[in-house]
Parts: sequence; structure tokens; C-alpha cells
Amino acid sequence: MCPVFQKVAIVGVGLIGGSFAMAIRKAGLAQRIVGLGRSRANLDFALQQGIVDEAASDPAAAVSGADLVLLAMPVGQMGSAMAGIAPHLAPDALITDAGSTKQDVVALARQHLTQHFPRFVPAHPIAGSEQTGAAAAQTDLYRNKTVVLTPVAETEPRAVRDVASMWQTCGARTIEMTPQQHDAVFAAVSHLPHLLSFALVDMIASQPNHEQLFQFAASGFRDFTRIAGSSPEMWRDICLANRDEILSQLRLYQNEIAHVQALLEKNDGDALAALFARASQARNTWAGKRSAD
Amino acid sequence: MCPVFQKVAIVGVGLIGGSFAMAIRKAGLAQRIVGLGRSRANLDFALQQGIVDEAASDPAAAVSGADLVLLAMPVGQMGSAMAGIAPHLAPDALITDAGSTKQDVVALARQHLTQHFPRFVPAHPIAGSEQTGAAAAQTDLYRNKTVVLTPVAETEPRAVRDVASMWQTCGARTIEMTPQQHDAVFAAVSHLPHLLSFALVDMIASQPNHEQLFQFAASGFRDFTRIAGSSPEMWRDICLANRDEILSQLRLYQNEIAHVQALLEKNDGDALAALFARASQARNTWAGKRSAD
Repeated sequence: MCPVFQKVAIVGVGLIGGSFAMAIRKAGLAQRIVGLGRSRANLDFALQQGIVDEAASDPAAAVSGADLVLLAMPVGQMGSAMAGIAPHLAPDALITDAGSTKQDVVALARQHLTQHFPRFVPAHPIAGSEQTGAAAAQTDLYRNKTVVLTPVAETEPRAVRDVASMWQTCGARTIEMTPQQHDAVFAAVSHLPHLLSFALVDMIASQPNHEQLFQFAASGFRDFTRIAGSSPEMWRDICLANRDEILSQLRLYQNEIAHVQALLEKNDGDALAALFARASQARNTWAGKRSAD
Repeated sequence: MCPVFQKVAIVGVGLIGGSFAMAIRKAGLAQRIVGLGRSRANLDFALQQGIVDEAASDPAAAVSGADLVLLAMPVGQMGSAMAGIAPHLAPDALITDAGSTKQDVVALARQHLTQHFPRFVPAHPIAGSEQTGAAAAQTDLYRNKTVVLTPVAETEPRAVRDVASMWQTCGARTIEMTPQQHDAVFAAVSHLPHLLSFALVDMIASQPNHEQLFQFAASGFRDFTRIAGSSPEMWRDICLANRDEILSQLRLYQNEIAHVQALLEKNDGDALAALFARASQARNTWAGKRSAD
């Protein structure tokens, strides 16, 4: 059973925080939702749309008396956001986040939330899009999606259960892993593909005939580069926060494409076809399982 | 004005050839459509679905008396397909193809089609999907898409006009460039992204914890790797046919990701954010123009 929260404070009412506000309201888990954010225009929009009930002007007003606080900003702002709210948190407040990396967020929470750290449940909802801001928020963004929880030794089991139950009531699945496991997994399947997609677009845009190149880019390019339309700030923060794991996956990828290059240089059609067939089969098996979910 | 063809022969009735058959029939340009292909089951399917009117058993039966012949198979089979049909072509037959590379196809046509070469119009419809076979064919696959024509000095202007007009009547736009320009452009915006996508999936699938990695792959991964579900045979052929241009783009990409790696190693968040912002803006500008088409 998930508790119903009297006051939910959402710090960062963008795609992620705004969608969370809509989902928790629809699930009947929030009496009142207060938003806090850097952009006044974005916050006003969220207020006008009824995504939040109140737009707070400072961290004290946002989190005072809140029994649930969600931190939903790019991970580079987590430290200052935590430092800002810590003095104003209610003693029993449940705190969670939606950051894309977890080892750094846990370290920051340990440093800044101090006595509240046991009631901070590190979380990463695996949902999103290349769009940003409250205008992109959707009630069902998290429905049937996975939320990874990465509690540590100090985290209260009761706090983990409440956050898990809250996400489940909003229609998501939850799963637990360590912050280290989380960051290694997402470096491979999310952070690296984003870097590679940004890199391809930058490389095309840097060529002298870039206008001609973009003119003939079609649906394969469109899908490959969708994630290159993502927020530069968010992805800078993720890269810096999860640098070591990303570098390690990037090195594996460089080895992989050096291998492809060698096969091309040798005109080794059989080995290229075998590599493509392995990839194609793995990708289609994955997509088949995923659509059966 | 596009002529109406009495007999259209489609060699390779897969996604591309099958969709062409459906489009040209809908446009009222074909009296009778005869298919030829390697897979009897696929050809029977096309016949049962009315995609073709007749399933030919050999090249002679397929192209004898045909006034239009479309070659729609992976480029690695173009040479033998051309050699197979050449002796049976009607003197005035118009011949075109849908191959993904053009310099190699033009060279093969010059070699195998001999006296028919002036009436061979090299073409590349920029449409497709990761799916294959007649079962994936769609009447509207080419609607509002671009077909690149790459005629050479010997190609009859009348033949080029007829093929252009045929595609336009089917709802596509046509544009002309040289085979060399075509292959350089598509190495950058299509062939390289396919290689990179295959390589990412193969790299993930090769890691010991690949099951866990695939479990957490989400929508960004899904779109980035959609093209890794493509036909291994088709992409082997493209790689071998356009090897030099692809290697040249692959080297540019390796330089680009080495640059990203250096920025990560230096923790240079400003430069990373600037690179991501350039890419994000270029991608979103492209996508905005494209959706306005």
C-alpha cells in the first residue's frame, strides 16, 4: 500500500518532473503538488496547465512540510539542489530523485542531505524523450516503464518500499540494483548510444557539403539520430557524472568499429555478413521480447 | 507523360520490388506485372496477394517482351541478374534498378547489359525499412519519398525522362546526381549509420552480461538500433560495393569519437556541451525542415 502524500514537492518541473506530477495526481497519491524550478516561464506554464498546484519561489517554500520530495533536474544540478532544500526538509520527508546516473547522486545525497540520507531513495525512471520542459510532460510517460531503485546500506527499507509502491501505483515496474551496476548498465545501453548519435550529427554537420548530406538523410538517419536532439546540458552532466563507465564502453566500441574497419579493408564479406547477422538477430530478438511485454 | 507499360518485369519481389509493383499498379502504369525471385515461397506469396500477376520461373520468361524491367535485389546479386536477363531483353526495353549503391551497379550494367546500357537508368529510391520480403511491401512506400537517378554520359535522355516520370506518377520526387556523388552522400547519411548501429548491437551482445544490458535498453536504444535489424546480406553487399566511401566516412567518425573521448578524459564539460548543442540544433533543424516537406 502506498501512502497518500499531503504535499509533494517537485524540484525541476520538466519532462520528467512534470510527467511525475501528472502521474501521481492521476494515481490519487498527492493532495497538493508544489513545483520549484529555474525557469519562471516553465513553472508558470506548469501552473496554468494544472500540472502543479503551486509554483514555489524558493527551496524553503517548496519543501517545508512536504512529505515527498522529488529531485528531477539534470544531475549536474543535484548537489546545489540538495544543499538548497536540506535545511528546510521535514524530519520524516521521503526524498527521491530521477537522475540518469546514480553513483554521483548517492555521493551528493550522502554529503548534502546528511541526517535525511537514510530516507533518500535513489531512483531512475527509464523513460523520457528528446523533448524537454513541462510542455512535453505526459501523464502516461511512466506507464509500463521500469524504474530502477539503487538503495545503499544506510537506506531505510521502509523508504524503499514506499517509493517502490508509489511508482507501481503510477503504473511502472520497479527493480533494485546497486548504483555501480546501474551506472555500468546505462553507460552501455543509453549513455554510449547518445554520445555516438551526437557524434554522428556533429560529424555530418562539420562536412563542407553538410546541406546536401542532410537533404538526403532519410528514415534510418532520423531514428539513429533522434537522441541527438536531446538536451545538451543534461547529457554533459551525465557524461561528467558517469565518465569512467562511459569511457570504458567507448573503448569497447572503438575496438568494435576498428574490427569492422579491418573487415572492410580486407573485403571480408563473409565476416561482415556474420557480424551483421549476429547484430540483426540480437536486435530483433530484443525487440520481439520487448513488444511482448 | 509517363508511358503505360504492357509488361513490367520485377526481378526481386521483396520489400522494394513488391512495393514498386503495388505503386505502379495503383498509378495505372502497368498492364501486367511479372515477378522473378530466388525464393519460391516469397514469389508465391506475392502472387497470392496480387502483388504480381505472374511468377516467372526463369529470367527468359520474366523479361521476354517486357517493356520495363526493374532490378530490385541486394547489389551483390546485380551482376548475375543482369547477365541472366541480358540475352532475353526486348530491343527497346527500359531497364532500371533500385540498388543502394550506384558506381558498382553502373559498372556492372555497362559490362553485362552491353547494347541495352543506354536504356538502363540507374536509380535509388530513398525508402525502405528494416523489414524484408514481399510480406513487408506497401503501396505507399515511395509516396513523397525521393528517388535519386544517376544517369551517365551514355544514358538516353528519353529513358531518364521516362523513369523519372514513372516514379513521379507513383508519388515520388526525382533528383539527378552522378553515381560518385550518390555513393559519397549515402556513405555518410545511410551506410555509416547502419554500420555503427550493427556495431553497437554486436558490442552489447558480446559482453558477458548482455542479457542484463538488453533488459534495460529503452526507447533511445530502440531507435538507434532499428536499422541494425536490417538484412545482413543487403548490408554486406553495400559495404563491399561502396567500401572506399564508407571507409572514408568511418575514418572521419573515428576522429570525431576520439575527440569526444579526449574531452571526456579532460572533464571538459563546456566543450562537450558545445558539441552536443551543435549536434542537437543541427538535428532538430533537419527534423523540422523534414516534417515541413
